[in-house]
Amino acid sequence: MSSFQNLKTRLADIHNLHMASAVLGWDQHTYMPAQGAPARSKQLGTLAKLAHEMFVAPETLTLLAAAESEAAATPGDSDERAFVRIARRNLDKSTKVPTSLVVETTEVCSLADGIWAQARAENNYPAFAPWLDRILKLKRQYAAAIGIPAGGVTYDVLLDDYEEGMTVATLNPLFETLKQHLIPLVAKIAQHKDRVSDEPLTRDFDEPAQEQFSRTVLQELGYDFTRGRLDRAVHPFCTNFSQNDVRITTRFEKNWMPGALFGSLHEMGHAFYEMGVDPAYEATPLGGGVSLGIHESQSRLWENLVGRSLPFWERHFPMLQKAFPTPTRSLTLENFWRAINCVSPSFIRVEADEVTYNLHIILRFEMEQELLENRLSVNDAPAAWNDRMKKYLAITPPTDREGILQDVHWSGGGIGYFPTYTLGTVLASQLFAAARRALPSLDSDLRTGIYSPLREWLRTRLHQFGSKFPPQQLIQKATGKPLSPDDYLAYLQQKFTAIYAL
Amino acid sequence: MSSFQNLKTRLADIHNLHMASAVLGWDQHTYMPAQGAPARSKQLGTLAKLAHEMFVAPETLTLLAAAESEAAATPGDSDERAFVRIARRNLDKSTKVPTSLVVETTEVCSLADGIWAQARAENNYPAFAPWLDRILKLKRQYAAAIGIPAGGVTYDVLLDDYEEGMTVATLNPLFETLKQHLIPLVAKIAQHKDRVSDEPLTRDFDEPAQEQFSRTVLQELGYDFTRGRLDRAVHPFCTNFSQNDVRITTRFEKNWMPGALFGSLHEMGHAFYEMGVDPAYEATPLGGGVSLGIHESQSRLWENLVGRSLPFWERHFPMLQKAFPTPTRSLTLENFWRAINCVSPSFIRVEADEVTYNLHIILRFEMEQELLENRLSVNDAPAAWNDRMKKYLAITPPTDREGILQDVHWSGGGIGYFPTYTLGTVLASQLFAAARRALPSLDSDLRTGIYSPLREWLRTRLHQFGSKFPPQQLIQKATGKPLSPDDYLAYLQQKFTAIYAL
Repeated sequence: MSSFQNLKTRLADIHNLHMASAVLGWDQHTYMPAQGAPARSKQLGTLAKLAHEMFVAPETLTLLAAAESEAAATPGDSDERAFVRIARRNLDKSTKVPTSLVVETTEVCSLADGIWAQARAENNYPAFAPWLDRILKLKRQYAAAIGIPAGGVTYDVLLDDYEEGMTVATLNPLFETLKQHLIPLVAKIAQHKDRVSDEPLTRDFDEPAQEQFSRTVLQELGYDFTRGRLDRAVHPFCTNFSQNDVRITTRFEKNWMPGALFGSLHEMGHAFYEMGVDPAYEATPLGGGVSLGIHESQSRLWENLVGRSLPFWERHFPMLQKAFPTPTRSLTLENFWRAINCVSPSFIRVEADEVTYNLHIILRFEMEQELLENRLSVNDAPAAWNDRMKKYLAITPPTDREGILQDVHWSGGGIGYFPTYTLGTVLASQLFAAARRALPSLDSDLRTGIYSPLREWLRTRLHQFGSKFPPQQLIQKATGKPLSPDDYLAYLQQKFTAIYAL
Repeated sequence: MSSFQNLKTRLADIHNLHMASAVLGWDQHTYMPAQGAPARSKQLGTLAKLAHEMFVAPETLTLLAAAESEAAATPGDSDERAFVRIARRNLDKSTKVPTSLVVETTEVCSLADGIWAQARAENNYPAFAPWLDRILKLKRQYAAAIGIPAGGVTYDVLLDDYEEGMTVATLNPLFETLKQHLIPLVAKIAQHKDRVSDEPLTRDFDEPAQEQFSRTVLQELGYDFTRGRLDRAVHPFCTNFSQNDVRITTRFEKNWMPGALFGSLHEMGHAFYEMGVDPAYEATPLGGGVSLGIHESQSRLWENLVGRSLPFWERHFPMLQKAFPTPTRSLTLENFWRAINCVSPSFIRVEADEVTYNLHIILRFEMEQELLENRLSVNDAPAAWNDRMKKYLAITPPTDREGILQDVHWSGGGIGYFPTYTLGTVLASQLFAAARRALPSLDSDLRTGIYSPLREWLRTRLHQFGSKFPPQQLIQKATGKPLSPDDYLAYLQQKFTAIYAL
């Protein structure tokens, strides 16, 4: 067997350990009984330790060096070259991190996750604060171990794990552009807020019927239930254990109809990406989505560009009326569509409209930097959160449950993760514009329930490549230009000018 | 840290790998989408490989040898001595088995499991036959690697993994005694079969109400849902990922009321055992139930000695009537109790009555030996199954679905496992007789819903010791005598003489 094959076998074992961790994580967030948490944390700790030890062992390095020689003899765009490039990047990083830090981070985050869920349920931020503090310390240690790049900041190290090549210095101007456009747009819409109401969405939507409706729509859009599942979780997520086992979760709220459905469509977008990777890449460094930003572009595309579009509801509104006759009585398609696109500063990020959404991200992006750099203490964080909500959205969360405690990310160690949501949101529009150019019948397809051309376009232009190309290169390849906020801002301008008759 | 502590840490990591496998197994049998199977098999293969490699690595042996010296300085009945005794026994075995055989067996059994489930659903034994053949070959290889004991047979090696110290030579006379008593008892009852009818159990029992009823009874008996779950599976089972995460599964059939309820009580008995082990033994060789026979005694005790007793139903029959008013109308407590104890040769082992049950086991015990020793081919096995059903129970399964395809065990590699069901059934009576001597108010407690004295007696006499004492020693300790069929045969004689007025 070639060194390449030997390396592949070794990395597949390590991959399988990570997949086992993912199953344990899914279980923890869906079905695990409460008292299972302490042992689960230890189990995840062991899996993380063994995966890390196996990866940084001298054997891996020897095999990789040999595989690099073999790959050098292949064409410049070969899978082999991409394989060793990614393996080298990951190994260089991992080698710098002590196993003890990997294990401690895994165990602490696994426990913090349950602590957060309870703190959130009980609106008890002080119970979570020491855990956040501990996680921040671990993240600073991690960044220090990897090494802060010349001219860079701690945050860049964390960000690079989620979005290769992205830095604070690149994000800042993007966020500035967004702020410059979004804050006035929000203000302008606020002057005409009486023109759209989301009251219809707060009527009584029976939960079992919501679940059935979500399942029907997922199936119609092409989510394959023999390769996935829909379950309930406190915070919706998508996870995958192979290309043929990609699961999503959502949550149901009787008096907030969009939550479950758009949450499901969002996670379905993530799932399509994982399900669409070239099967030959399974269990290799080439498998899986390449970055969180590109992942998020897929979820936002299906959630918003498709799911909140008028053509989509021309087909689905009658189905909705059939599934929920009482709350949709006396409601028109046009009013329903405007309701699901109602722009209104709100507390909960995942339920924010498309215009205010990125302001929620900017808040988190700024706070994470301050927390990491000790410019803000965990104890002062809730007040800082509320101040920023006031500044960007002119509202103040009544409790921490609707404020700093709302997101799962920090408890799971996901610091530096939020900006990828903005990258994804921006990219979703850029991709959809490219898809529309390539598929002239896109709108009429959506109107008539034909989804395979869009799915196939995304699969062949993006999904199938898995992690082969770095994010920026993939964006260029798929859309013909680098990432830019132009399509996104144009989309918002056009859509909300129409909806609010601005 | 002492060598003992170091060994403990190392074994805890290996234990955590096994627990991760258990989570993956639970998921596979409850929620995994169909197409997840091939990757799951690989993931389980990796976990088995790493656990095996870590265990048989020279480091383990070195640590164990040092720990043995430390343990030798402790009292004769110390936990340390038991710890190293079990570790040594397991290590001696594992060292003889090549990693490749461990991985192949794990992967084949994981796949065979899905193949079996489909073959069973489609009544297609030929689809499963080649997999059974492959598993038998792997089991023969395993037995050869371990080494067949002098004067023993292949089967002994497999049996010893489930029930330390048990052999075919010990089982044969036990099964002969059972046959001598059970076959005439079945025949005698058959002459009076008109005296008891299980027709009431085949009426329409609404499935959601069955589930609710099972949950209520489980809770009342002391199953703690913060430390466990009840889910659905093709074949009911109990599995545990720690002492505080012990899950059970069952299945629901509208026109067979006993299936779900007694299945749940059965698995609850297994769960009580795992939940009751001394917490200090968690993640050590002392943790977990010591053998499958003793495990089965716990499930059969709650399922039959408690669940099918008249005192239990004096309390629960009114609750049953309330939960299922229609099918229980015009039914008396006495007739219901007789119905759930109706003796009638039947096809499905897990639904067999207490008298015919062991004849199902004897059939499997005999066939497994013939298959292992190549005296019977997998192709001839369905006919051999049906011949024996005719011989022992005077009935012939209409299809393989009700015959050779009914059990999950063989597809999962569980060959040599079935006899432990008989050991457990016999021991359940012996333990219950001992409990009755110790708890004079046992019957009135069951009549009034007081279960903690029995639970506590089992916990303190049996559960808490985990795997510390070998099975035969534990039986002696808990009941004051070695395993004997006397209590079981006396129980059957008395109970069914009364029910059938023999």
